[in-house]
Order: sequence, then C-alpha cells, then structure tokens
Amino acid sequence: MLNTFCKSPLWECHATLVRVAQGLEPADTVIRHASLVSVTTHEVLPDADIAISCGRIAYLGLDGHTAEHCIGPQTRVIDAAGKYVAPGYIDSHIHIESAMIGPSEYARVVVPRGTTAIYADPHECANVVGLEGVRVMFDDARRAPLKAMLTTPSCVPAVTGFDDAGASVDAAQVAATMEWPDVVGLGEMMNFPGILAGEQNALDEVAETLKAGKCVTGHYSVSETDRGLAAYIASGVRACHESITPQDVIAKLRMGMYVQARYGSAWLSLPGYLPQVLASGVDTRLICLCTDDNHPNTLVSEGGMDRALRACVAAGADAVTALQFATINAAQMLGVDADMGSVTPGKCADLVILPDLASFVPEQVLIDGDLVAQDGQALFENPLFTWPDFMTHTMNVGRSFTPADFEIRVDRPDGFARVRAIGGVGGSTITRDSVVEVPVRNGKLEANPEADALKMAVFDRHHGKEGTHSFGFCTGFGVHGALAQTVSHDSHNLLVVGDNDEDMALAARTLVECGGGEVAVADGQVLALVRLPVCGLMSDAHVEQVADEVAGIEQAWADMGCKMPSPFMTMGILSLPCVPELRLTNRGYVNCVTFEFEDLLIEG
Amino acid sequence: MLNTFCKSPLWECHATLVRVAQGLEPADTVIRHASLVSVTTHEVLPDADIAISCGRIAYLGLDGHTAEHCIGPQTRVIDAAGKYVAPGYIDSHIHIESAMIGPSEYARVVVPRGTTAIYADPHECANVVGLEGVRVMFDDARRAPLKAMLTTPSCVPAVTGFDDAGASVDAAQVAATMEWPDVVGLGEMMNFPGILAGEQNALDEVAETLKAGKCVTGHYSVSETDRGLAAYIASGVRACHESITPQDVIAKLRMGMYVQARYGSAWLSLPGYLPQVLASGVDTRLICLCTDDNHPNTLVSEGGMDRALRACVAAGADAVTALQFATINAAQMLGVDADMGSVTPGKCADLVILPDLASFVPEQVLIDGDLVAQDGQALFENPLFTWPDFMTHTMNVGRSFTPADFEIRVDRPDGFARVRAIGGVGGSTITRDSVVEVPVRNGKLEANPEADALKMAVFDRHHGKEGTHSFGFCTGFGVHGALAQTVSHDSHNLLVVGDNDEDMALAARTLVECGGGEVAVADGQVLALVRLPVCGLMSDAHVEQVADEVAGIEQAWADMGCKMPSPFMTMGILSLPCVPELRLTNRGYVNCVTFEFEDLLIEG
Repeated sequence: MLNTFCKSPLWECHATLVRVAQGLEPADTVIRHASLVSVTTHEVLPDADIAISCGRIAYLGLDGHTAEHCIGPQTRVIDAAGKYVAPGYIDSHIHIESAMIGPSEYARVVVPRGTTAIYADPHECANVVGLEGVRVMFDDARRAPLKAMLTTPSCVPAVTGFDDAGASVDAAQVAATMEWPDVVGLGEMMNFPGILAGEQNALDEVAETLKAGKCVTGHYSVSETDRGLAAYIASGVRACHESITPQDVIAKLRMGMYVQARYGSAWLSLPGYLPQVLASGVDTRLICLCTDDNHPNTLVSEGGMDRALRACVAAGADAVTALQFATINAAQMLGVDADMGSVTPGKCADLVILPDLASFVPEQVLIDGDLVAQDGQALFENPLFTWPDFMTHTMNVGRSFTPADFEIRVDRPDGFARVRAIGGVGGSTITRDSVVEVPVRNGKLEANPEADALKMAVFDRHHGKEGTHSFGFCTGFGVHGALAQTVSHDSHNLLVVGDNDEDMALAARTLVECGGGEVAVADGQVLALVRLPVCGLMSDAHVEQVADEVAGIEQAWADMGCKMPSPFMTMGILSLPCVPELRLTNRGYVNCVTFEFEDLLIEG
Repeated sequence: MLNTFCKSPLWECHATLVRVAQGLEPADTVIRHASLVSVTTHEVLPDADIAISCGRIAYLGLDGHTAEHCIGPQTRVIDAAGKYVAPGYIDSHIHIESAMIGPSEYARVVVPRGTTAIYADPHECANVVGLEGVRVMFDDARRAPLKAMLTTPSCVPAVTGFDDAGASVDAAQVAATMEWPDVVGLGEMMNFPGILAGEQNALDEVAETLKAGKCVTGHYSVSETDRGLAAYIASGVRACHESITPQDVIAKLRMGMYVQARYGSAWLSLPGYLPQVLASGVDTRLICLCTDDNHPNTLVSEGGMDRALRACVAAGADAVTALQFATINAAQMLGVDADMGSVTPGKCADLVILPDLASFVPEQVLIDGDLVAQDGQALFENPLFTWPDFMTHTMNVGRSFTPADFEIRVDRPDGFARVRAIGGVGGSTITRDSVVEVPVRNGKLEANPEADALKMAVFDRHHGKEGTHSFGFCTGFGVHGALAQTVSHDSHNLLVVGDNDEDMALAARTLVECGGGEVAVADGQVLALVRLPVCGLMSDAHVEQVADEVAGIEQAWADMGCKMPSPFMTMGILSLPCVPELRLTNRGYVNCVTFEFEDLLIEG
C-alpha cells in the first residue's frame, strides 16, 4: 500500500540494499559524520554514517563503523559533521486547502521546512466537487516528492440536513476509495454525534475503513472523557487532534487513542496540554504532531511542522521526544513504520539535516534519497498545475448580484427589531448565540454599527438557480464595508457580511467573477482580493503570491476597523453547522447545541 | 486479516460496543474495581471498570467513573478489587512442536498461564510433512481459544544440500500461504547467510511477505552488528530473537529492528542482556518477549510467558515495562495493535486478572471476553485431536533395524583409528569439531567409552528405501546404552547414538514401531520412551502425560551416566547443519563453518 509513495518498494530493491550494506555495490548517497537522532532508542548517536541506495537506507555506520565501504566514484557524499540527521517530519493530519494552494505547491513550501509526508484530508475540496476533485488533487500531489497520503473525507457534508454542499460522500464511496492506491485511511470523523447515536452511514464509513485495514482518524471536540469518548474509540477511531486539555489528552492515551497534538496557524492547542502531559510522566508513544490548518502566510513566514516541533520544545519536550512525535509515533499510528518514521536500514531515505536540535529548520531535506530542498528552498521543479474546468468553475450562484439581493425584508414597522446574531470570537471555533437590536427601515432590516451588528448572507453556490440563500447578523468584527468569502466551512457557500447592501453586492460580484476567494470592499471600492479560483478554495498561483494576497486582506480588515486576529478565519466558520453555538447556512440559522433551525427575528 | 482470530471483527460489532459504552445496552461482562495496567501510558490505574461485549472492550471506567451503567440482569460481573488487570500475553515467537504437543493442547497449558496469543512458526512440522501438515496444525489450533497466529516457515529445509527433509517450502509457496487467513508473517529467516549472499529464494520469500504487508521475523545468530546486520535488516526483516549480548540488542534497536527477548526452556538469553539494556536508558518500545522453545515439563512446572515476565523483572524491568514487552510492543511489531495488546476500547477482551504484579500467574484469563482459565486450569473443552494418517505415519525408513544396520565398516586393520567426532556442549546450540581415537575390530569402528565417544547414525526417515544414512561419533554424553530421537533438528531424521549396535538397533526399532519420539535403551531393555507419533515430533496425548514421559527419559539419561542438563536437547541438534561447528546428517558430516562435507576417518 504505502509503496505507492516510495521510489522503490522494498521487495523490489532489497537485493541491492543487501549488496550496498556489505560494500559489494556503491551507494547512491552517503551522509557522513552526522549526529543521528535515533527515534527508535531515543538517543543521539554521534559520528554516524548513512548509506542510501534506491531511495532507501542500506546501511548505518554506528559505534565507530563507517560507510566508507559504500562509497564509489559516483556516490554523492554529504558531510554532516557538526550537524544532526533526523527522520523527515510526518504531519499526521492536514487539510491542504487551508493553505489556499494545491498539493504540489504545498509541497514546495513545507518540504524545505522538513515535512516529508502528510496525512491529508481533502474534505474542503470534496465538499465543493466531490471525490472526483480529490482524485485530481492527488494527481497534482504526485508531481512533487512530498509523500501525500490521502484519507477519504468522512463528513461531506459535515452535517446532513442543515446546509447544501456541492457534493457528498457516503459509506459506499468510502469503500470504493479504499482501493485507491494513495488512500491510507479515513479522514477525521467529525460526526461523533452520529457515531454515538449509531447512525448507519457514519458507522459504515468506519467499518469500510477497518475492513480495509486502514486508519480511522477522529475529531472528538468535546471535553467529555467518559462514556462518549469510550464509545467513539470503541467504534474504531484510532486518533484525534481535537484535544485542548491535559485531562482529555491523558484520557485518550489511556483508552489507546493516538493524540495528534495540534499546532497550526490559528488552532494552537498543543501548549494548552503538553507541559502537563509531559510532567505526568506517561508514555508518549501515542502522541503525534499535526498542523491541521496552515495559512499560506504562516507557512511562508513561520513554518509548518518545524514550528510545531519548536512549540513542543517550548512546552518542555526534549528534542528527541518531540521528533518521535513527528516521526515514528505517526508512522506507527498509520501502520507505515516499515517504510518511514525512522532512519534505519530498509526505510525510505526521508530525512532532514539540521544545524541543531532547536530550530528544526533543516539545511537539507532528502526524500527517497533525493536532495529535495536546501537552505529553505525546494529543489524540485514545480510548474503550476492545470486544473480541470469542473474545479475552476464552481461559482454556480445563478444570479448577478445587486444590492437588492441583500435586502432583508420583514413584516415589521420601522424602528427597531430584536434579531438573533452570531457572536464571532477571535481565535476560537466557538461562536456565541446572541440577540441584538437592529434598525428596520422601509420594511428591511439593516446593520447596526452601534451594536457592532453586521448583516450576513449565505448563498448556495453549488446549485445555480435552484440554490437557496438566507440572512442573519453577526457581531464581533467591527468593520465598515463588506467582506465576502467562498472559504466558508464546510460547504463553502458564498458568505457575505457587511454594513451596507451596495458593498455586499460588489463583494459578491467580485468573487463570482474571479471564481471564488476572499474579498474586502468599502465605499464601492475593492480594497483587497485573495483569488482562489480552484473550488473557490485554492489559488492556481504560487504560495508567495497567495501569502501576499492574504496579507493584503488582513490589512484591509484592519483598515476597515477589525481588531480580531485573522478575522477571515473566524468569518470562515460562521457557516459551519456542527460547532456550538449558532451558525448561519444557506438554509438559515442553525442552533448547534439543539441542532434545530432558529428564526432570525425574536418575537415580542 | 487479524480478525480471523477474533470472535467478532470490530466492523461487525462496533454499533453494539457504542451502545454498551453509553449504557444503552447491557454488557456481557463487567470487571469492576481493578488496578488496570495501562500499557499505552505506562501506568497502573486504580479502581478501573471494564465493560465487555461481543468479545471486545466497550468501555473503560476510569478516574472515578464506573461501568455500573453497563450492567444488566444477564451481565456477568467480576469483582477484581485488590487485583490487577493486564492485557493477555503475546508470545512473539514460538515453535509449538518443541512442547511435543499439538496446538490445542498447547493452548490448554499456556492459556492458564496468561498467554492469549502466539506467533507460531511451525517449521519442525513443515520439515516432516510440509505445508499440508502446517494447515492441519492450524485446524487443531482453531479448536482452542488461544489466538494462534501462523507464520509460514521460511527455511524448510534449514539449509539446502546437506541433508534430506520430508518436505520443502519455497518462495512460491510462501506467496501462496500469504493468502491463508491465519498467516500473519514469515517465520524466522534463519538463512541469514543466504540473505547476505543474495540467494534468490531467500530474498523472494521475504519479498512475498513484504508484498502482502506482513511481518518478516528473523534469526541473526551471530555477534556481528555492523554490515551484515544492516544488510539483513535492510532486506526487510523486522525482528530477531537470537540476541545474546547487550551490544547486539542495542545495535538492533538502533537499526529499527524489534528484539524478541527470549526466555524458553533451554535458551535463556534474556538475563544476558536485559539488565544492561534497561540501564542504558534506551527507549524499549521495540523490545518484545518470546519463549521460542518450551519443553512440556517447563510449561507444566514453571510456566511460559509468565516465567519470561518474571525473568524480566528479575533483570530489573518494572512490571509495567515488562508487560509492555509482552503486549503492546508485540502487537505493534505484528501490526495487530488495533485488535490486541492493550485493554482499551475496541480491542479484543484478551486479558489476565492477576493477584499482584510479581508472579504474572493469572487467577483468571479472558480471551474474546470469555473466561477461558481460572486458577491455573483451562476452562475450555479439549478433546484430543484426530491427526490424519499422513502425519502419524512418518517413519519411512524402508528397513527393519538390526544390529548390522549400525556396523561402521572401514578398510582399516584392527587396532585404533582417528575419527572426527561432534563434541556436544550442554545447554548450547554450538558443537565442537573434535578428533577421537576409536577401536577398529573386524573391520568395524566401535565406540570408545574411555574417550566418551559414542557411535552415531542418522537415517533418512522420509524417503523409505531411497533414503540414505550415515555414521559418525559424538562426545560429551557419557552414557552406556543407546538413545534415539526423531526430534532431530531441522529435518528430523532418525538419530541414534550408543555404545553398542544391539541397543542402537532396539532403540531405532522402538521408535519405528511407535511412530517416532525419543527412547533410551540399555542392555536390551527400553528404559524410557517418549511417544511422539505425530510427525515424530508431537504426542497425541495430553501434556501432563508427555511431561511425565519426558521426565522419565531425563531420568533414564541420568541413570545411563549422562551429567548434561536436558541432554536430549543437545542431542536433538547434532544433526542441524547450520550452526557451528560439526554436524552429522543423513548425508554425512557437515562442517558448519566452511559448509563442506567432511570425512569420518582422519587420514594418517
């Protein structure tokens, strides 16, 4: 299975490795004099030599032994004296789409930072264009050396019956994908309420994955650590990245669940529990690392897994333990430890050469024995991918937006009305279910800047003229103008917020024209635009350009008056109808505690 | 794959487990108030409850939570207050045949001692009757609750060209067995010289196992820890049980190889390295336990894996670490940790209830949630197995033995002749290549009691009249009379030693008549007989009877003058043509350093 991702399956090249190890045939590459991070023994081994052939490690020279016997005239010799060699980092749970770029471009930015394999859950793409789009993403992924292990998205749509996505995935499709060569598991089973309630499709998706002998990853985002957690784990879910407290981490470890400690752009869960977990002295073999969601600017400016590793050390982990999280533990979780996760004979030569054990930023990165990055730069070619039309034409809104499309007509006299509003909370996935007073003028509800209440609209962008839309209000952003996004979890409909209908219409039109993205508008002017024409989620450009565009829209938000950190992220989950408390989808308000629809107007 | 061994695959019963965990359906069994050994976190968790349904763990009540909500009128409640619950022991490498009983009878003796799963390599049986016999062994195994995971024997015969076994296994057959439901890996690849020399069949056997995603277990029985070891591991071998020094254990761990610490009846390797390995502070996640070869009397009187666990603690391991060796580490090695190796939700309810963490002798043993042993007694029915004729008629010697069959005729004058002799060494697999003087009378070589030189004969017992035989001498046993064995590694031909032809002939005839086994004869009397009619290796009786018979033959050896411990074991490897220095097979003397045949007579 895994050998899909390797230059040579071990069974095809082992005769060569056997010869190379014994000096009967020269190695392709020999790394000399490294301090080798042994994640199997939790040691740093001095003056180690590593001989590589066929993309795999043939020989380790330890304890005074050298790999001189593996060096021939054509062998590339890398002197790593004074440096450290560690296994390449495995990101155990990542949504590529959050970086707003495609997989091969994602590789170009994370590989130089040491990530050599990702366990990718493309559920954003699947919500827009279904499994066919997922397949295309992995066509792109295969153009880069990063080992992009695919998981079939389990929750498309995230929750059924509350909004309209562009596609859906059911257990029969999950079963079919388990035959795909790139698929190593099931993406995060966010529908834990469905599992606990015994919903057949949710259980069947898990069952089909277990039957295929693959890994079911989870998402248990509540603090409950007793019956519900046990039931969820007993269903077959092997891992979870949603922990936020030491108590829930330790409960999961005791119940045999892998904990994927998360440190992404906005969801910085790891520091909240790792110090206490380490201090408790529990065995950490079931702790992995993941970044979950990385924004392009974070990747470009701060890093990905290297940043998460630094966070581990800041939280009190020794460097080798942190590297175990990022390497062998993840490989064991995924059942791929025969091929990756340690620098040992027979494994793929996926490794980083580090100047020290503090920054985790590699000087050189090898994947399958090839030098793929040096001094922060990818060495592999990466022409931009040509995406198929069905993925670049996903703004099926069935209308040309005018200000009239944003009028919220109500049967109320002019004055004020009490309405429900979503309270956005910066840096959190939780929202508040609040009530605000907004003006009624000419039978229409308006924004109320004094109460920080903006108008909201969500338009189905998948079903053209058949699509529905709804209106609401939100607080917490404090802007003048309008913002629109097609990154609007998880169905990624067209979400528009603003204090006036003209700017809202312009924002919507701008995204329809460019194929999706994020836009900021004020006083009839487009202030900033992030173009994401691929599914309305990903750019077709290079990451640096996307990062610039994202920086531009962040500045625009600030200029418009918003003081929230990364407000477009908070905005992007206002439509996610599965996290407390209140959300607005194209079908209307959803109370995500009771899972019932709510009215906009408060009576009385 | 693994679910072959489970009462219910998780994907068939997870809906029920989810309901049970939440108290919506009663559990089959609830264990209450246990001190739970958490091998995932390396803790002992006080006052834990465990709810079991469908043979699997549905719920763990920890940290003040109880399983009271899982108890219905039909639920069996086990009060484990003051006791410990740990996962059942996994023996990571075992040859059932060494216990001289069949698999279901083996289960009857090891399950009450806490072993719930074995990784069994039936290479003795395969050498006599081939894979068809292996298949029958596992038909027997399935009659008992012990999870008998089968590995295809990799080295049948042990070495090609030096003796004649009853059957052979090649890479094509290995490939075919990888489809068998019980097969989880490849049995110990003893032919490490073949791997290092690039022998196609040896490499192909490994390749076929890797291709099937299964575990290749090894046997690297030399102290070399550099190029050869790296080459061997790079070929795809994942584990080895042949370590004898801390240096070679640590070298293997650093190279990513699982070390199966061995503590069997005679090969007590573990105490020779474990104290130093533990003192070194290396991560022990790749250390497993195995017993390799257990004799029936050891199993009956001292135990199996429980004995090995006590040896770990005696070597300085804390009890929880020792239990990790015997449980989760082995499960991870085999890739079966989603189904066994920890007492956590979703896993098979294979567990032991222990009075303390010192003896490791359980009061109760559960497999798949069923109480299968109590206070040292198996609770499952075990009618003796009916073995097929082809396995109980394996004495194909093509002759009726008379003293004349043991005459060693030489073209030498009466007097003395210098001959090669195998120097047997008690408690070791190594033999010495020595030279002794023996009498020549009437053109025949005779034993020389003064020089402790016995005559030896090896008769092919697999090919009837076509079979060959050969003669030699051995030293070290110091007996008067004759001994014969069909347990004669690895081809299990008929091996006879003695100081006179009459007793040797009687010994041989006795074994032919009873279908194989071990016999001691002196002065025309059979002193003791171990009847092993199944392949000449295993009894068709209960283990207690076999243990009595083995005790009888040990006594006979002593009565005959032998001072060696377990001399029948040392005798049983005099024919094994792959371990230094000298061996006698049915084809003649084999020098196991040069791998050349040697003459009996020393010229000059």
